[in-house]
Amino acid sequence: MNQETDKTIASVGRPGLIRKIAGYSTYRSETVVKGIGDDAAVLAGSETRLGLLSSETFVEGVEFDLSFMPFHQVGAKAVSAAVSDIYAMNGLPRAVIVNLAIPNRITLDMIDDLYKGIGMACADYQCQLAGGDLTGSHNALIISVSVYGDVDKEKIVYNSGAEIDDAICVTGDVGSALAGLKVLLREKRHWEESGDPIMQPDLAEWDHVVKRQLVPVARKDMVALFHDKGIRPTSMIDVSQGLLSDLQRLAGNSKRGAYIYQSALPIDLQTRKVADEMQEDVDKYALYGGEDFELMFTLPEKEAEKLSKINSEFTVIGKITAKDGLVEMQTGEGDVAVFGGPAGS
Amino acid sequence: MNQETDKTIASVGRPGLIRKIAGYSTYRSETVVKGIGDDAAVLAGSETRLGLLSSETFVEGVEFDLSFMPFHQVGAKAVSAAVSDIYAMNGLPRAVIVNLAIPNRITLDMIDDLYKGIGMACADYQCQLAGGDLTGSHNALIISVSVYGDVDKEKIVYNSGAEIDDAICVTGDVGSALAGLKVLLREKRHWEESGDPIMQPDLAEWDHVVKRQLVPVARKDMVALFHDKGIRPTSMIDVSQGLLSDLQRLAGNSKRGAYIYQSALPIDLQTRKVADEMQEDVDKYALYGGEDFELMFTLPEKEAEKLSKINSEFTVIGKITAKDGLVEMQTGEGDVAVFGGPAGS
Repeated sequence: MNQETDKTIASVGRPGLIRKIAGYSTYRSETVVKGIGDDAAVLAGSETRLGLLSSETFVEGVEFDLSFMPFHQVGAKAVSAAVSDIYAMNGLPRAVIVNLAIPNRITLDMIDDLYKGIGMACADYQCQLAGGDLTGSHNALIISVSVYGDVDKEKIVYNSGAEIDDAICVTGDVGSALAGLKVLLREKRHWEESGDPIMQPDLAEWDHVVKRQLVPVARKDMVALFHDKGIRPTSMIDVSQGLLSDLQRLAGNSKRGAYIYQSALPIDLQTRKVADEMQEDVDKYALYGGEDFELMFTLPEKEAEKLSKINSEFTVIGKITAKDGLVEMQTGEGDVAVFGGPAGS
Repeated sequence: MNQETDKTIASVGRPGLIRKIAGYSTYRSETVVKGIGDDAAVLAGSETRLGLLSSETFVEGVEFDLSFMPFHQVGAKAVSAAVSDIYAMNGLPRAVIVNLAIPNRITLDMIDDLYKGIGMACADYQCQLAGGDLTGSHNALIISVSVYGDVDKEKIVYNSGAEIDDAICVTGDVGSALAGLKVLLREKRHWEESGDPIMQPDLAEWDHVVKRQLVPVARKDMVALFHDKGIRPTSMIDVSQGLLSDLQRLAGNSKRGAYIYQSALPIDLQTRKVADEMQEDVDKYALYGGEDFELMFTLPEKEAEKLSKINSEFTVIGKITAKDGLVEMQTGEGDVAVFGGPAGS
């Protein structure tokens, strides 16, 4: 075996792997307006609308832990994560297909509960559970959610349209889903160490971050606002991999750079408290956390200012620069940290 | 815990579970023309065309075995299985989204090989690899393939339109994919027992059935013929679960029954030879085998007769009856076996 053969996936990273995969997408269908590289594939639809298609897979023990996540929350979260990709294109989800690979230990009642969560989330996002596939699994429960949505041709937003000097906006707060996970894992450890099977952790103090981990909500409200006010961001992406990684992708795909202010990162007080207790750097939670399912979008500065007067659900964290693929962050101390790395995909 | 809570999934079966799941699909989207119950969900498209959406999940150790399936064949087979659902609606696949959950032991080279197979299959079926999701997995490699297709409004075929006295037609042969699997598993066992790491089994004698297991081909040729000749079957389904199970579904969804002839089941000679060697009943391979990815369709008897004169790629195995959900089979001895069971979904 040569070194190339032996290469691990970690060594090329996720963006590298996605670029590699794109190399095997050689057949071009007229139906596909935009393939690999954005939150959803874009499909030719009617005269006025485009179709959107995205899919996500969730593996027990990787994306979710059944020891502290009830089945209905697992189901709802999977749907939220999937529809978030449609909102990131400024579209609306319409239909969801759910595939399950089910190990033997999972009972009918558990599956029932899982689908209750899926059904409720579908109703929340106004999309129909329209099919799925069922198969077995030796170990982990595996959930794949595919979502079809659509968007007016003039309203579609790609992750590649950011312009120099645009304001970079982020909805809600970031890093809280990771903070919630840290709290839940700590409580799980306490519970395991206590040997008391009925011990119930008191999570009231951490309600916000725990909720953000267990039942994140995709930002349909922001897309509704854009549609309502006739606002079309120049670019948009959902914050699912982590703010920095998603910003690098947006900047790289736009062939632009980004300059952000560490002090402007929207971090909830509870997230700060978790990081304090864990003796960790809260900015790392915000930059690398992932699973926040917030929307990051860019708008000309004046439009962002105007929008901020009617809506307080987002924060301006910086602006787009001409430096292709480069993300710079002005720290609290006034230094500038530079993140190059793999941009775009 | 009560008995209801404890129920296993096996106890209600796949059709029972699908019916249960449909109960949680309460939100109705105007975009969804037909939801759960057919091979693909049907979506409102343009003035003249409908969208089709389907998704399948493949779990290592359940749907595929990497000890005798090269990665490129695993990739190609996953695509074939997914697009087969689109052909079953008389549609054409246009875009494919592939999600992978990848365990650590899988190298970049293996993933490369997997995508080579996916890319080649996409080109064969003239659909574009348009996106996907990558995540980790502790044990098994997991592949989810979602496919979007479309079909002229006047050409769509559901699995619920069979009429009394229609001829039941099946393309190719059935049971061969299972026969191929049996051969491969036997050779694997021999190889394991031999302790000889470089022993190569001689599979030349079993080329047809092994190929049917490793590289099945979805029947785009038959759909092309239907389009070319302006033929629209009254109903259609792909033979993926097993001929009997799929026929029960087609009959049940059509609120009809089926009467088939055991002697008419299209079984390849190699499949018979495998069953002989295994001292098993070859008709069971044909009825319950699954993974054949043939198309089963119904046509008025005269149309089927006409079609058979220009195409020999299908066999008439019986006809549709008025007996709602009941499948009857006339055996070689002249008895009639009755299969009731859970119909439709």
